[in-house]
Amino acid sequence: MSEVSGPVLIIGAGLIGTSIGLALRSREIEVFLRDAVPGHAIVACELGAGKVDPGGLSPRIVVVSVPPRHAAEVIAQASIEFPDATITDVTSVKARVLADSVALGADAHRVVGGHPMAGREVSGATGARVDLLNDRTWILTPGGVEGARLLQVRALVEACGAVCVEMDAAEHDRAVALVSHVPQLLSTSLAGELTDADEQQVRVSGQGLRDMTRIAASDAELWTDILSANSGPVVDVLDDLIARLTRARDSVARSDSVAGRDDVRALLREGSAGRARIPGKHGLAASDFAVVAVMLEDAPGELARLFAAAGDEGINTEDVRIEHVLGRPSGLVELLVRPDRGDALRSVLRARGFDVRS
Amino acid sequence: MSEVSGPVLIIGAGLIGTSIGLALRSREIEVFLRDAVPGHAIVACELGAGKVDPGGLSPRIVVVSVPPRHAAEVIAQASIEFPDATITDVTSVKARVLADSVALGADAHRVVGGHPMAGREVSGATGARVDLLNDRTWILTPGGVEGARLLQVRALVEACGAVCVEMDAAEHDRAVALVSHVPQLLSTSLAGELTDADEQQVRVSGQGLRDMTRIAASDAELWTDILSANSGPVVDVLDDLIARLTRARDSVARSDSVAGRDDVRALLREGSAGRARIPGKHGLAASDFAVVAVMLEDAPGELARLFAAAGDEGINTEDVRIEHVLGRPSGLVELLVRPDRGDALRSVLRARGFDVRS
Repeated sequence: MSEVSGPVLIIGAGLIGTSIGLALRSREIEVFLRDAVPGHAIVACELGAGKVDPGGLSPRIVVVSVPPRHAAEVIAQASIEFPDATITDVTSVKARVLADSVALGADAHRVVGGHPMAGREVSGATGARVDLLNDRTWILTPGGVEGARLLQVRALVEACGAVCVEMDAAEHDRAVALVSHVPQLLSTSLAGELTDADEQQVRVSGQGLRDMTRIAASDAELWTDILSANSGPVVDVLDDLIARLTRARDSVARSDSVAGRDDVRALLREGSAGRARIPGKHGLAASDFAVVAVMLEDAPGELARLFAAAGDEGINTEDVRIEHVLGRPSGLVELLVRPDRGDALRSVLRARGFDVRS
Repeated sequence: MSEVSGPVLIIGAGLIGTSIGLALRSREIEVFLRDAVPGHAIVACELGAGKVDPGGLSPRIVVVSVPPRHAAEVIAQASIEFPDATITDVTSVKARVLADSVALGADAHRVVGGHPMAGREVSGATGARVDLLNDRTWILTPGGVEGARLLQVRALVEACGAVCVEMDAAEHDRAVALVSHVPQLLSTSLAGELTDADEQQVRVSGQGLRDMTRIAASDAELWTDILSANSGPVVDVLDDLIARLTRARDSVARSDSVAGRDDVRALLREGSAGRARIPGKHGLAASDFAVVAVMLEDAPGELARLFAAAGDEGINTEDVRIEHVLGRPSGLVELLVRPDRGDALRSVLRARGFDVRS
């Protein structure tokens, strides 16, 4: 890992900017912070993320970590203010932000687009952590930047403990439209359908609906920014998806016929194949696991007893899912383990008196 | 709980039928089974689910547990063959199945529609469990059935340990279209979009996409049946949803304007409100929990140590989510606890050396 040569100036003392400051300071790199709201920078500095920007600095690297709608302007201003500095940002949309910043005067040879993938439900400097980005994927879109400057930003990413992945900016935006932005709108739209539903309907909800609507609870303001900044790729993917859903609708409407049923079946099979492409833990597909279901008493210590039983036998739990029974103080816990450990885990759990269901 | 008066005849010795047989036999109720494939009934009986139907019986209750596309016909045949019996079924779609069965000769005064909500990833008698339906919601659609017959079926549901909920058949079908069938098609369609994606795009998938596509892995044959049998309500809900997604698409396309951004924000807020209506554990909304995030070593025993720490302090974990970091042997575990226990849990875990992230 190469060294980060400071000073680093972080513009925007929110969750991500402050966390980057904390991580760099933990390696004794010189860090300064500024924020459009000066009080925010002061709070971040009090937390140990660096010193308040005194003005007149010559930073080697500038990190722009402001909300998406301000990113292009702040990148351009930084490029003009610091004509020797390497500039990077943390915006979750890349092509339009970088193009807009160049249109506003940024020097494309010195700007490395960045997107650390660390979703959290809190925001602001007070939610920052020195290890927020530890082990997280941090995408860089180097574009036409000079090689030495890319190395500087890579060193910064690594100093935060993150894993660097390089992509083309447009490809990044299509990818996040597909795997993040359109799923957000789908979840939002499905959940929106529930606003008019009556109590009886909502009452029969199962784990499927809960999974499908979890991200609908995300921050509306931030997502308005993200979706607006990536509107082109999002609209393209949504058009494809709406066409596919319309095909599904028409197939279901014709499902009295053999041809209609065949179409429904083909859509379902295609979905199953698409799902299998998503990497799970350590790159394994979800289908690579055995599922062991246990009905658990809803009491402190029961989960501990369950995992202790698995751990004592050296069986590593790869994933866990807890399904709660409506209005009942108990829950079905599903443990995902490697396929060759499923039967061993079932035996161990039964021997310890657990109510193993599958 | 009133007694179930046998004999009970179960037609269809699959997962649900065999599990019902096992549950009734555990209460020493007389059970017989038949299946279109005689060998299936023999296997179910060998597992202890009852005796093979010898013919010439006069069952008090007939449980029709066949795939959705055969249900109406089998209900009608049972109604004709056993003119005194109360008949119930386990089909996940109600109005069309019941109407079709009446059209085929079933006596509507003796048929109680049923839908035990116990999804499992396996099928067939060999996956059956005596307690499969324990604590599960079992919807009944009594329609115009005689009161005494409804009481008989309620007793059967309770003998299986399930929780009885009564609804109108059409209302049931609209409810499951909204909370189960359309979410299935959404998940399927989103996952279907991934079939053409390139490796780089799929690689940046996060927990959101994984949650949104989990049910896309479900059995295509069974879901073709379900969607076909409930096509009317499914098409209605899909039409609403496609209209909402099209509004979302148009709003995103106009998000350069203030009005477009306002529309995007309004959609996101409405989704958030809809999500909040879904009952979580014990009827609590997900937002009623504190989320404590811990970065865990990926080793046997670590989860046990985590839950042991919580359990020792008498803090009950209401839900658990494990997010895996791509290609790294560690995982972020989120524990959901009652809001007033969040800080206590964080302190305890930090004191025991856990890497608490939020």
